[in-house]
Amino acid sequence: MKPVKIGLLGLGTVGAGTVNVLRRNALEISRRAGREILIYRAAARGTWACDTTDIPVTEDGFEVVNDPEVDIVVELIGGEEPAKQLILTALANGKHVVTANKALIAKHGNEIFAKASEMGLMVAFEPAVAGGIPIIKALREGLTGNKIEWVAGIINGTCNFILTEMRDKGRDFDAVLQEAQAKGYAEANPTFDVEGIDSAHKLTILASIAFGIPLQFDKIYIEGIGGVTRMDVEYAEELHYRIKLLGLARRTEQGVELRVHPTLIPERRLIANVDGVMNAVLVKGDAVGPTLYYGAGAGAEPTASAVVADIVDVVRTLTSDPENRVPHLAFQPQSISDIPILPIDAVLTAYYLRLSAEDKPGVLADVTRILANHQISIEAILQKEPLTGESYLPIIMLTQKTQEREMKAAVAEIEALASINKPVKLIRMETLG
Amino acid sequence: MKPVKIGLLGLGTVGAGTVNVLRRNALEISRRAGREILIYRAAARGTWACDTTDIPVTEDGFEVVNDPEVDIVVELIGGEEPAKQLILTALANGKHVVTANKALIAKHGNEIFAKASEMGLMVAFEPAVAGGIPIIKALREGLTGNKIEWVAGIINGTCNFILTEMRDKGRDFDAVLQEAQAKGYAEANPTFDVEGIDSAHKLTILASIAFGIPLQFDKIYIEGIGGVTRMDVEYAEELHYRIKLLGLARRTEQGVELRVHPTLIPERRLIANVDGVMNAVLVKGDAVGPTLYYGAGAGAEPTASAVVADIVDVVRTLTSDPENRVPHLAFQPQSISDIPILPIDAVLTAYYLRLSAEDKPGVLADVTRILANHQISIEAILQKEPLTGESYLPIIMLTQKTQEREMKAAVAEIEALASINKPVKLIRMETLG
Repeated sequence: MKPVKIGLLGLGTVGAGTVNVLRRNALEISRRAGREILIYRAAARGTWACDTTDIPVTEDGFEVVNDPEVDIVVELIGGEEPAKQLILTALANGKHVVTANKALIAKHGNEIFAKASEMGLMVAFEPAVAGGIPIIKALREGLTGNKIEWVAGIINGTCNFILTEMRDKGRDFDAVLQEAQAKGYAEANPTFDVEGIDSAHKLTILASIAFGIPLQFDKIYIEGIGGVTRMDVEYAEELHYRIKLLGLARRTEQGVELRVHPTLIPERRLIANVDGVMNAVLVKGDAVGPTLYYGAGAGAEPTASAVVADIVDVVRTLTSDPENRVPHLAFQPQSISDIPILPIDAVLTAYYLRLSAEDKPGVLADVTRILANHQISIEAILQKEPLTGESYLPIIMLTQKTQEREMKAAVAEIEALASINKPVKLIRMETLG
Repeated sequence: MKPVKIGLLGLGTVGAGTVNVLRRNALEISRRAGREILIYRAAARGTWACDTTDIPVTEDGFEVVNDPEVDIVVELIGGEEPAKQLILTALANGKHVVTANKALIAKHGNEIFAKASEMGLMVAFEPAVAGGIPIIKALREGLTGNKIEWVAGIINGTCNFILTEMRDKGRDFDAVLQEAQAKGYAEANPTFDVEGIDSAHKLTILASIAFGIPLQFDKIYIEGIGGVTRMDVEYAEELHYRIKLLGLARRTEQGVELRVHPTLIPERRLIANVDGVMNAVLVKGDAVGPTLYYGAGAGAEPTASAVVADIVDVVRTLTSDPENRVPHLAFQPQSISDIPILPIDAVLTAYYLRLSAEDKPGVLADVTRILANHQISIEAILQKEPLTGESYLPIIMLTQKTQEREMKAAVAEIEALASINKPVKLIRMETLG
C-alpha cells in the first residue's frame, strides 16, 4: 500500500521531535498503522534539531498545504496566525489535519471544526493538551459511558516545577522562575505560563469535550501563580495541603465552573503528589469514579508521541475497513512478532532478602561472601533486634540487580548455612524509574 | 436513525451496572455516539440488581447471539465456557462483540480475534483490564508513536486492598483477607486474586498490545501475595519502599519478561501510593517517557464505564462516515449544549486565608464575626508567632465551602479593620474527593 504523505509545518522543538520519533520508530509505527508514514515535505525557518535528509524544506507553509500530494498536514508552528489560515487552507484542499496548537483550538476551534465537518475531514489535537498524556482520547473515547462531573488538571509544567521547587527547597517564586528560565523549562517571556493563560487554553478544550459545550476561552476565570509566596506554601504544608496551579471545570446545576488558579489540595490525594514538570489530569465520571492520567506535559518527544498517535489514528481511519479500524492486539495481525518470553531465571531484577540468623559473629560475613561469589552487590543492610524470646535475629538486605538464577543459587547456599533458619524470604524490587 | 440493538449476556455485577449506566446516562451517551443504544434483550439466571422493564430476559444465551435483530453482543458472564462458544457464534452470525472476560481473552483471544478478522468484525475488550481505566485505548491508540519499553500494573484491587491494610494497620495477611471477604472485596474463593492469576490474565493482554506479540498466558511467571508477611511490609517501609503485587512486562534484548509477583517499589513513586482497591498502570514509552493511568479496577459501574465506552466505539464506527468517526469535541456537533459558564463570583469553593494581624486581644473575634455574618464556617485556624522584628502576626484560616461573592465581601470588611494589614491573602482550596 502507498505510504501516507505528511506535510509538516514547523521544525521547532515538537516538529524536530516528531521527525526524530517517526524515523526512529518507523517500523513499530507502521506495524501499528498498517501503512508506512512518510514525511513528504516540511516548512520551517532557521535551524532545526533533526535529520531532514530526503525531506524538502521550504520557508513557505502555504506551499505545503497546497501540495496535492500531501495527505495529512501536521501543524506545529503555534500561535494564531498564520497557523489558522494554513489549517483552513489545508482543510479546503481536502487534507486531514493534526495540530498541537492549544491557543488556536481554544480560541478558533469552533470555526476550524465546522470547516472540517463540512469537508468530512479529521482535525486531531491530542498534543494540544498535556503533551504526551492521551487525555483527549481518554475523555472523548474512553469515558463515553459517563456523565463527567468535573475535570481537574495540573496542565502547565513550568508552574508545577516552580511550585514544587518552592516547597521542596523553601525558595522564593522569583528565584525559582529565574532558574527555570536558565534551564529552559520556562520561556524567556513566561507570562503565558505563570499567569495561567496556557492552562486556560488547555482547560477550555478539556471542558468542551468533557461536557459537550462549545469552546469558550473568554469565559474562564484566570489567576496565575505570581502571588503565591513561600510562606503560603509552608503554611499549606503544615495544614497537610499542597498548592498547585489547577485548571478546574465542574458541572453544577446552575452551569459550568471554569477556572484556573492556585489551589490547596489535600496532600494524600495522588494528584497532590505530581511534582516537577510533570502533568496530570483527574477526571470524575459518575460511573467510573475518579480516574487520573499522568505523564510529561511538554517537551520534544513526549509531545511528538501525541502527534504521532493522532497521525496513526488518521491513517487507521483512512486505511482500515471501517469495521476494524484499530487492530485487536494494537499491531496489524500480520505484524505480530514472536519475540521469546524469558523464563523467570533469566530475569534481571533487584531483591529484598529477609534472613533469620543466629546472633553470633561471622554469620553476616558468610552470607556476604556467598553473595559476592555470585557477583551480587548489596545496596543496604538492616539488622533488627531478635524478637522477644527468640535467639534468631532478622537481617534484611537490598541487593542491586542480578539474574534470578544467580540469586536462587546464592539463596540455596545461604539456606545451607548452619546459622541460618530456612527459608530465606525473597521479594523482588523494581525502581520503575 | 435506528437505535443500535444490544444483546446482553449476563446480569451479574457488571451486567446490572451496564444496564443502570446505559439507562441513567442514555441522553449523554447518545449525544456522544450519535445514535440511541438500546438493550434489546438479555440472557441471565437468578436475580439481578437492575431494572429490566422492556428488556426480555431469557436463560439461554444462544437465543441472544442467534437473534438476527441483535447488532452487538455484550458478554459479561465470565469464565471460559459457554462464553467462548457464545462469542464465536455471535461472530459467525456477523455481530460485533464487547467482552469483559479477561480469562477468555488471555487464553483464547488469538482464536477469537482470528475469527473476528475473518468476518470483518470488532471484538472490544476494554473492561477486561483494570475496570474503568481506559488503558487498552491508551496503549493501543494513545501511545502508537512509542516503542513501549515496559508496562507495570497494580491490576488486582483485592491484593492491593490487602497489602494496603497490612501496611496501614499493621495487620496480618489472613486477618485482612477474611475482612475483605466479609466486605465483598474478595471472592469467597480468593485463589484467582491472591495467587496472582487474575493479574496474570490482565498482564497477558497488556503485554500483547504493548509489544505486538501473541497472547501467551502460559509463559507468565506467577507468584501471589500469600507469602508476604506483616514483617516484610514493615521492613520495606523502614527502607522507604512499598510492597505491591505488580504485573510487569519488560522488553529486553533477549526477549520479553512477563511476571506477576510481590514487588518492592520506592515510596516516592506515584504508583507506590496507589492504595486500597484502586488500580494503576505505569507505561514507559521511548518517546513519551513514563505515563500513568489510575482508577477503579473493578466494581459494577467502573467496569460498566468501560463496557459502554466499547459499545460507543463500535457504534461510532458503524455509524459515522469513516473520515469522522469520533466527533472533534467528543459530542456530535448537533448535540453541543450551551450550558452557562458561571462567573467566578458564583463559584462554590473553600478558602485558605492568610491575614497579617496586630497582636492584641479582640482581633480574632472581629474577623470570625465578619465571617460568621457571611455564613462562612471556619475549618481550621493556625496562629503563628510574629516574624522577628514585626508586631504583626500571621493568622491562617481554612474555611468550608462558600460562594466567592460572599468571601469577597467578607474579605473587604476584614481588610477595613484597623488591626489588619491589607491585603488579605486568599487561595482557593479543593478536596477533589
